[in-house]
Amino acid sequence: MTHRILLLPGDHIGPEIVAEAERLLRALSADFGLDAELEYAHLGGCAVDAEGDPFPATTRRLAESADAILLGAVGGPQWDDRPRDQRPETGLLKIRSTLGLFANLRPAMLFPELAAASSLRPDVVAGLDILIVRELVGGIYFGQPRGLRTRDDGVREGFNTLVYGADEIERIGHAAFQAAARRGGRLCSVDKANVLESSELWRGVMTDLAARYPQVELSHMYVDNAAMQLVRDPNQFDVIVTGNLFGDVLSDCAAMLTGSIGMLPSASLDDGGRGLYEPVHGSAPDIAGRGLANPLATLLSVAMMLRHSLDEAALADRVEQAVARVLADGYRTADLATDPARAADTRTMGQAVVNAL
Amino acid sequence: MTHRILLLPGDHIGPEIVAEAERLLRALSADFGLDAELEYAHLGGCAVDAEGDPFPATTRRLAESADAILLGAVGGPQWDDRPRDQRPETGLLKIRSTLGLFANLRPAMLFPELAAASSLRPDVVAGLDILIVRELVGGIYFGQPRGLRTRDDGVREGFNTLVYGADEIERIGHAAFQAAARRGGRLCSVDKANVLESSELWRGVMTDLAARYPQVELSHMYVDNAAMQLVRDPNQFDVIVTGNLFGDVLSDCAAMLTGSIGMLPSASLDDGGRGLYEPVHGSAPDIAGRGLANPLATLLSVAMMLRHSLDEAALADRVEQAVARVLADGYRTADLATDPARAADTRTMGQAVVNAL
Ligand SMILES: CC(C)[C@H](C(=O)O)[C@@H](O)C(=O)O
Ligand SMILES: CC(C)[C@H](C(=O)O)[C@@H](O)C(=O)O
Repeated sequence: MTHRILLLPGDHIGPEIVAEAERLLRALSADFGLDAELEYAHLGGCAVDAEGDPFPATTRRLAESADAILLGAVGGPQWDDRPRDQRPETGLLKIRSTLGLFANLRPAMLFPELAAASSLRPDVVAGLDILIVRELVGGIYFGQPRGLRTRDDGVREGFNTLVYGADEIERIGHAAFQAAARRGGRLCSVDKANVLESSELWRGVMTDLAARYPQVELSHMYVDNAAMQLVRDPNQFDVIVTGNLFGDVLSDCAAMLTGSIGMLPSASLDDGGRGLYEPVHGSAPDIAGRGLANPLATLLSVAMMLRHSLDEAALADRVEQAVARVLADGYRTADLATDPARAADTRTMGQAVVNAL
Repeated sequence: MTHRILLLPGDHIGPEIVAEAERLLRALSADFGLDAELEYAHLGGCAVDAEGDPFPATTRRLAESADAILLGAVGGPQWDDRPRDQRPETGLLKIRSTLGLFANLRPAMLFPELAAASSLRPDVVAGLDILIVRELVGGIYFGQPRGLRTRDDGVREGFNTLVYGADEIERIGHAAFQAAARRGGRLCSVDKANVLESSELWRGVMTDLAARYPQVELSHMYVDNAAMQLVRDPNQFDVIVTGNLFGDVLSDCAAMLTGSIGMLPSASLDDGGRGLYEPVHGSAPDIAGRGLANPLATLLSVAMMLRHSLDEAALADRVEQAVARVLADGYRTADLATDPARAADTRTMGQAVVNAL
């Protein structure tokens, strides 16, 4: 069966790193039996420029019929002053929500070869391997009512609603318990239940779910303490599950701990196996167009796609092993190189992974 | 003029550390001319146990007539299952809100003697000295409507409201710009304006205020990026200003970076100079009653009180110098000691600071 893969290069370095993903996918098709058909569409700032909408109808149609989606990165300063409905981020939020991609998996792992890039002491980050499961289509990102208004006393105010239904919490809870069962068997649910009613419900639902996963040990932590514990001793965690906003903050914090932020992939899944895959890093306007971007997070996102959406676990392993090989062989893009003058450019790195397959 | 100081020992290690603050205040009165009258009241779990309310009316009366308040710490597992209005944290939120303590100042600084306690590489945290200014009586902590309800389809949901008026943002903005003007002249405002309307207003108000503080350089950062940048290179910051929830998370993260969390004081100020002062750390049920608690964060909170509420800057300097002296002399409580068996207990440390005055 032919897999239909939609590529969304996005903005700035996005097209450069997605070009390497395409190179990888074509090699997997030519030499390793992957049966894939690649399509392209606009998302984010490039979609605003080309079609006046950060998530155009054409992109939506292609996304809805694809088996999996690979995104480069969206955003850039040239769109910052646009009204909210014409910002790149709005396109990202809309594709997540429209496709029901509620389960955002963000692994934060240390690549041993790159340990020196972490700002943490080597003994604190050694062997780091955490998975953050973030709820992605609910909470304060999407809650109604929201907006700007003028109070009766003439003062402007801005307001947003943080709301979670028990059904939304259960859905992400199941995804997280299942992920923990496949890994180290420990799940830490992060909330602010000492202050927020929405978190009180979150904690209650997670506690109830735990009875159905006797092989997983559930704990709870307040979000402020979780931020501290990530810095103090990240290795205490296996899987973390949390809401959309807390997950946004904690996953970036955890990714940075590893020092390997140019290396980390992510998956955003619906309840049927369809997913959007993207590197954790952003669109890096400062280095765009110069061949400096590290394509490995994108190539590892392809591996996640092969595993989670295309049922091609053997190919996923092959890609991950190829990435490990090129690192072991000493290939480094500028973000990782100790001597940037001798760094590999985006293409060289992408081709090295293909050669190592 | 006699300063009326209200002491709120609170729960678990609270009474032990506040006893050392009392020792310090009595020494300042006896030998250094401080004219202070000390009063005591209940807040938190002890108030629930003694008076059935985490912020009893007697405490409120004394707090409203005091010139300054010193809090030990509140909370503990024995109150975790109480209804929300009988939890220790509710007492803390109520005293903040009732007294209008909107400006929460949380310095995060590295004590050079303790650099080895940080989980960050020494070169990353060397000289670290950040001030986080957190809005403390608004935002999602207090926004209405909030609660738990059953939807029409029978599903439970929990909801909270994140709301900021321009007047609240201006008020905390002024406090932060003034703090930055007294320090390194750089202010970073942290929000999530790419997603939240409340943050859009926040960013706009901060930008407008900047015109009135030409000596301060204002920048903006999204909260997820701020969490990353704190880990990557905390020294890039001088003063950070942010809302209640983001400030809760980022200030704990920043405090932990220093490795000196047992050392860090905080102030929560109203617009007239009254303040509540407390250590950044919690009530530490696990070590309560054993003389293991580090009183230095509480003693440094007394120094902040002398400076910000009692107009006794010279005495504040004296306390801070005494703390520096005992550290230089090698005194360490168990949390800081390389050889815990030889650590100073709470009292020994408190007395050492008094001796060093
Ligand atoms: C760009 C932004 C809307 C987005 C988010 O907040 O979810 C990003 O920070 C992320 O984490 O994918
Ligand atoms: C105990 C809790 C309610 C409180 C808060 O969230 O403000 C604490 O975490 C703090 O930061 O002072």
